Amino acid sequence: MNYRLKIQYDGYRFKGWQRQPGTDMTIQGKLEAVLSCFVGEVVTVDGAGRTDAGVHALEQVANVKLAGESADVLQIRDYLNEYLPEDIRVSSVECAGERFHSRLNATGKRYAYHIMKSDCENVFLRKYTWKAEKPLDIKQMVQAARCFYGSHDFRSFCTNPAKKKSTVRKIESITIEETETELILRFCGNGFLHHMVRILTGTLVEVGSGARKPEEIPGILEKRERKYAGVMAPAQGLFLEKVFYD
Amino acid sequence: MNYRLKIQYDGYRFKGWQRQPGTDMTIQGKLEAVLSCFVGEVVTVDGAGRTDAGVHALEQVANVKLAGESADVLQIRDYLNEYLPEDIRVSSVECAGERFHSRLNATGKRYAYHIMKSDCENVFLRKYTWKAEKPLDIKQMVQAARCFYGSHDFRSFCTNPAKKKSTVRKIESITIEETETELILRFCGNGFLHHMVRILTGTLVEVGSGARKPEEIPGILEKRERKYAGVMAPAQGLFLEKVFYD
Repeated sequence: MNYRLKIQYDGYRFKGWQRQPGTDMTIQGKLEAVLSCFVGEVVTVDGAGRTDAGVHALEQVANVKLAGESADVLQIRDYLNEYLPEDIRVSSVECAGERFHSRLNATGKRYAYHIMKSDCENVFLRKYTWKAEKPLDIKQMVQAARCFYGSHDFRSFCTNPAKKKSTVRKIESITIEETETELILRFCGNGFLHHMVRILTGTLVEVGSGARKPEEIPGILEKRERKYAGVMAPAQGLFLEKVFYD
Repeated sequence: MNYRLKIQYDGYRFKGWQRQPGTDMTIQGKLEAVLSCFVGEVVTVDGAGRTDAGVHALEQVANVKLAGESADVLQIRDYLNEYLPEDIRVSSVECAGERFHSRLNATGKRYAYHIMKSDCENVFLRKYTWKAEKPLDIKQMVQAARCFYGSHDFRSFCTNPAKKKSTVRKIESITIEETETELILRFCGNGFLHHMVRILTGTLVEVGSGARKPEEIPGILEKRERKYAGVMAPAQGLFLEKVFYD
């Protein structure tokens, strides 16, 4: 039986989603270890997005095939939450069709990037935001963000693109919400390349601080080379908020 | 010169406000160590409220007398924020009258207690809330909270009261805010005894879960003995939000 999991995690202590040799501090590794104990054999958990070290998730989606008769989904969820570390929580487990794959079937994702305002000091946000060094001009950032709307080759805005794979992605929207303490940038799109949200954020922050102009964005897209885009924002401000399916 | 400091801290790693032998993990101890380096002699920092181990502060107030000519307040603040651990931040330093004492002059305080709803799983709130075990009846809690309004002897709602000191305090208001994930109880009063907010919260949660009735509260106040009140809520949900002065 194939199961669909919704997972929330505080990425602060972890080396990212993807299982890797030499560390047990990955989200995938933790889930697989607990589920392998549950069924008594090695299992593989596939995630919708391979979040980087330090990146958080409000609702990551994964799927896992478990042998044997179908188990009670609430029992699986409670078992996971009992044995997972407290900074990973499984909010739901559902039966899924045999062909469901969390990454291959995903039609879109929403990420949020949290920036702490330069004039704000907040100890509770320090692990979950990027602190702005100076006040940011939101109007300029919104104008720059508009240039990313639609389908573009985002090769300038990613790390190590695979040679034979397309780097074209479609961005539905980039919104900027201002709260008393934060700017929250929300990115909706059909998919995101490696480090893409963090490089888009770094570039938008450079626009907001006056180091770049919104008019430069189309030119950076055209260059199709990483070095023309802005800095990569740090991991701790990034949250995978939602994965969309048809 | 006497200075007034506003301080924010994430109490998670600390043994509380008050300096104590055998540990350097107190808020007062950290502030005194950095300020002693700044002026080159031992200084004492007095705080408005001696928060317990694990309790947080959005705006604690303290005062400190520094010898010598008056230093630039921004310079003091920046020095503190450079050398304090990142989970303690000083949001402002101001010159105060020689007679200003942060605790003795305080006319009131506001505390907030954060409860995570029983049907909510949120990894980001785990260090800053008390997770409710079952759904809480807010109407019953509000009705019980009303019984605490005004001046009462709160001896039943504190730990180790000093024999010769009054345990009468005046509560101005207790409000309950409901968000998607939390209940936030806010306590305003002229002063709070040791553990008082946490025992009030524990008792109100027992009312909300149906284990007690609001009508029992006046009787518990009258008993003037700790054993008649409810459990003490854990430290991590408690925030000192504000200290009031005339």
